[in-house]
Amino acid sequence: MASTFSEYPPELSAVQEEYLLTELKDWSISHGLAVRPAPSFVSEDVDPAHVTAVTAPVTLFPSLFPRQCYEQAKAACKAYNELYSAIASDVAWLTPIVEELIDVDDFMKGLWEIHLKVAEEGYAQKLQLGLFRSDYMIHMESGSLDASATVKQVEFNTIASSFGGLSSRVGELHHHLHNSQAYPSSLLSTVNSKTMPLSNSIAGLAAGLAESFHAYQKTSTHSSCVIFVVQNPERNVFDQRHIEYKLRESGVPTFRLPWDLVLEETSLDGDRTLLYNPPRSPGTSYEVATVYFRAGYAPSEYETAESWTARHHLERSRAVKCPSVLLQLAGTKKVQQVLATPHSPHLDRFLPNKADADIVRSTFAPIYPLDKSEAGLEARKLATNPQTAHKYVLKPQREGGGNNIYRETIPEFLKTLPEQQWPAYILMEMIEPPPQRNTIFRNGVMASGNIICELGIYGTCLWEEVDGVGKGRRQVTHNGEAGYLLRTKGADSSEGGVAAGFGSVDSLCLVEV
Amino acid sequence: MASTFSEYPPELSAVQEEYLLTELKDWSISHGLAVRPAPSFVSEDVDPAHVTAVTAPVTLFPSLFPRQCYEQAKAACKAYNELYSAIASDVAWLTPIVEELIDVDDFMKGLWEIHLKVAEEGYAQKLQLGLFRSDYMIHMESGSLDASATVKQVEFNTIASSFGGLSSRVGELHHHLHNSQAYPSSLLSTVNSKTMPLSNSIAGLAAGLAESFHAYQKTSTHSSCVIFVVQNPERNVFDQRHIEYKLRESGVPTFRLPWDLVLEETSLDGDRTLLYNPPRSPGTSYEVATVYFRAGYAPSEYETAESWTARHHLERSRAVKCPSVLLQLAGTKKVQQVLATPHSPHLDRFLPNKADADIVRSTFAPIYPLDKSEAGLEARKLATNPQTAHKYVLKPQREGGGNNIYRETIPEFLKTLPEQQWPAYILMEMIEPPPQRNTIFRNGVMASGNIICELGIYGTCLWEEVDGVGKGRRQVTHNGEAGYLLRTKGADSSEGGVAAGFGSVDSLCLVEV
Repeated sequence: MASTFSEYPPELSAVQEEYLLTELKDWSISHGLAVRPAPSFVSEDVDPAHVTAVTAPVTLFPSLFPRQCYEQAKAACKAYNELYSAIASDVAWLTPIVEELIDVDDFMKGLWEIHLKVAEEGYAQKLQLGLFRSDYMIHMESGSLDASATVKQVEFNTIASSFGGLSSRVGELHHHLHNSQAYPSSLLSTVNSKTMPLSNSIAGLAAGLAESFHAYQKTSTHSSCVIFVVQNPERNVFDQRHIEYKLRESGVPTFRLPWDLVLEETSLDGDRTLLYNPPRSPGTSYEVATVYFRAGYAPSEYETAESWTARHHLERSRAVKCPSVLLQLAGTKKVQQVLATPHSPHLDRFLPNKADADIVRSTFAPIYPLDKSEAGLEARKLATNPQTAHKYVLKPQREGGGNNIYRETIPEFLKTLPEQQWPAYILMEMIEPPPQRNTIFRNGVMASGNIICELGIYGTCLWEEVDGVGKGRRQVTHNGEAGYLLRTKGADSSEGGVAAGFGSVDSLCLVEV
Repeated sequence: MASTFSEYPPELSAVQEEYLLTELKDWSISHGLAVRPAPSFVSEDVDPAHVTAVTAPVTLFPSLFPRQCYEQAKAACKAYNELYSAIASDVAWLTPIVEELIDVDDFMKGLWEIHLKVAEEGYAQKLQLGLFRSDYMIHMESGSLDASATVKQVEFNTIASSFGGLSSRVGELHHHLHNSQAYPSSLLSTVNSKTMPLSNSIAGLAAGLAESFHAYQKTSTHSSCVIFVVQNPERNVFDQRHIEYKLRESGVPTFRLPWDLVLEETSLDGDRTLLYNPPRSPGTSYEVATVYFRAGYAPSEYETAESWTARHHLERSRAVKCPSVLLQLAGTKKVQQVLATPHSPHLDRFLPNKADADIVRSTFAPIYPLDKSEAGLEARKLATNPQTAHKYVLKPQREGGGNNIYRETIPEFLKTLPEQQWPAYILMEMIEPPPQRNTIFRNGVMASGNIICELGIYGTCLWEEVDGVGKGRRQVTHNGEAGYLLRTKGADSSEGGVAAGFGSVDSLCLVEV
């Protein structure tokens, strides 16, 4: 089946390409598979009111993906939900890990201090909601693509997991291209309705938010709402809107609140109920059941004292936070490393069910700390030697992507970094995905070539920390899988993310290998 | 209730307006309530691949409309479908009317010649499909808005009735703005789910096309398709796409074919079955069940001999034409005038059911010919005298809008027009709509002020001309109402149409008067 990969996708004739692009451009805009254009594409001068939109960066074809790898990633979803809800609930376990980081990471320090302050005052809400995305790449265990191929985890996101809206749509787009005969008939045995799973991420993520809303409502006598805390401006707004509209359709009032207006437009009443007071309706207040963060995840968003005050204000409120500060901290790469360090005992502790632990463990690539532990000293040897470093990637512990150091450039980079800052990074064995080609369409420009795919599986989890927040005992009332994301980027670029570089949203075409 | 009109819509505060516009801009793009931008807005230089889109011109609020008037227009729909199917089937009746026009109208002459040629050869298809839109304005019978207000017909469209796609969406937009509290709470008694009917025009028009497709399929052993014959480029493409996607969803293969490629990409086989041979799949042919014209309605589209050949080619085919040449000719304003000339006997002849004739007649404003009949001579007096002309509008017989002459400017215009060309125009009493205000949002610019609304009611009708095309006897197998369009434009402009001037798509807010 490696031949499927090398022969895919087929070359298109000029008329085939024109037809496919016309179908793609019209379908995407008709269905909100769109982003606001970058100012470098449509300038502020041309569109000062920001009424234009553009087809989101997408692939022309769904990318190939071994069915066994997709099934493996899906099968791990609920165990991952369990795992991270358990970690976020266990402050005693988290404390030493976070304390090791806060000396070198002011952002984590700020978040941790919020937790400490709220814990001292007493948390007002025991319900916790996670909308997670676990990201994987295909790893050729044997060096070539065969039945031994697995997925290996790239990272686990506990805050602002994006593209759930556009992911549902891009799968529907590829189905439309298939149904409208935009794909050559030679493809039909590979690309057909049986090989192209749709992602139910819009419905799935909205359902997770609705679960928390209804659970909160049981404790309240007022009618309440869900608040999406967002960046402003936000080019990826339609991705978020699709989830909001789905929530609204299900009867859950939902509003967007820019991150920098949190303190202005919300307040706490006597029992720390969070009230949303929109200035557009003076005198009207909505009780906030759930705060869904699509902002507030990056250090750059905390450059003012007010930002920290705003985060603290939300954290101490009685609203369900998606995520809480503790859940955000549980998503640090340091936790991923601690779990995935070879022979780590932690996974079995959090997942006493052996089948759960095994399926999660099967997705780990070896990860090492860069501290002075035994594993850390071993990693320092591997990372500073160009002979061994070429098999690794160096990643910062922080969330939000960016600044990964790859392979041969690691030793040089570490030379420039004071040694006391090394523990802010982890060393991870590179995942070796199969070579594959596709065409990415972005701002009207096509680029064909080698690509790399990253599969994200969305999970939603609602639980109650029955003895109090962080005390360890919890009751999970909802644990669901919520669709997938396939992100595809040029294989030559070193950094992921559709918003930067030549990245795109994609969908799956499953193949048997 | 006139006070409702004078106090509507309310002033918005700056924060209310900003919130409403943000909701509007995001919802519209998320749901394909969009158009391709004009080159004057986003130039070819900026977007050579035509990937940008922009919110379609819309009103911020649904416009007020007396409920009785909406009910009257809807009630007339099926009778109008009957009427125009009867007219198009009656060549004997149509012939003298058309013959009167062809001396002064080369476009009609060309269409009529196509009919004559195909009739001589023999029509290959007895099934006829009409997707109609009957356009109305509110008329204050008593000079003020009260229970005597009615709708009066502006025109009846038998070809390329547009905006059915965007019309469904704009109603949903206004519902969203209501549900997301973008309208001030003071409006709730006026604007609420009970007063805002949604237009099912997407589903309704698609259902009409599907009826013809399935009726054709019964006579065919091959799998077939529907073809939308379209202009290229087409800025209003999403309006058409929504209907296409709905058709596809219901299992009807549907393709777009640019008007100038008809001869290149279709052919006729021995029994005049129309075959669509897309060059993107050489060797593949689809049998065409239905040709839906969203092009080919304007004289400017027939400037080459090839265009006439293409229309003749389609007309003589075995595909169902929506519309046939005869049905297009039945939609001429001359027919409307003949029916609506006071004391005309024709309506009762086509609609022997008195209730049908009465409801249709209730929508007529007096219309006069400008020929040398008794009514025509009377009209010439009215039109050439500035004292009386101010109550009238002079309209060309041709389809496609444009070039209406209003009120006091009529006498001057007639002086410049050779008298033998006068019969190409009809004289119609001006409809007096109630003054109303709204805000139109177009390309990021808002314009508030006096507006005029035009209500269109979509109807779909499928019939078989059992004794042969044009012989009079027919069997109607489907007759349906298919939603509405509200088009709103600045009251100071003299010409309708969302694509020209400050026009917009709008939805209804029904009021009791």
